[in-house]
Amino acid sequence: MTAYTATVTVRLKQGVLDPEAETTQRALERLGFELEDLRAADQFEIDIAAATADEARERVVEMTERLLANPTIHDYEVDLTEQ
Amino acid sequence: MTAYTATVTVRLKQGVLDPEAETTQRALERLGFELEDLRAADQFEIDIAAATADEARERVVEMTERLLANPTIHDYEVDLTEQ
Repeated sequence: MTAYTATVTVRLKQGVLDPEAETTQRALERLGFELEDLRAADQFEIDIAAATADEARERVVEMTERLLANPTIHDYEVDLTEQ
Repeated sequence: MTAYTATVTVRLKQGVLDPEAETTQRALERLGFELEDLRAADQFEIDIAAATADEARERVVEMTERLLANPTIHDYEVDLTEQ
């Protein structure tokens, strides 16, 4: 078994309203900062042990689709590194 | 002016309790997944226009320290790319 760390980034799909990001952007503007756009995402770092990198990635993708992301409104990315 | 995208990752410092991550880990385990650890982080993608990469990074670091992260409990990372 090898130890892997997977970084899962869960973003809202383009076109899905994100009131939290909008509020954050407005708060920064109210503090005097200039910015064009701000998007928020959730990131999960998952440590798992697996026989191969492919198996680790497959299990993390399944975790993401079962619990971490909602495919109706989210896109996600999985990056895998060996520990 | 050049357009940059900064990716700010805000993590809890080591030792700070994270009940949200713990709940997510337990929910995955209840679904039958095996994992060693799960950490959650917030990610912000900020589009800004600046004269130089250094200026862009400096402004994003200031935004992060003023609003996005709480230095008492958070560590953060800023990655900058030209659009």
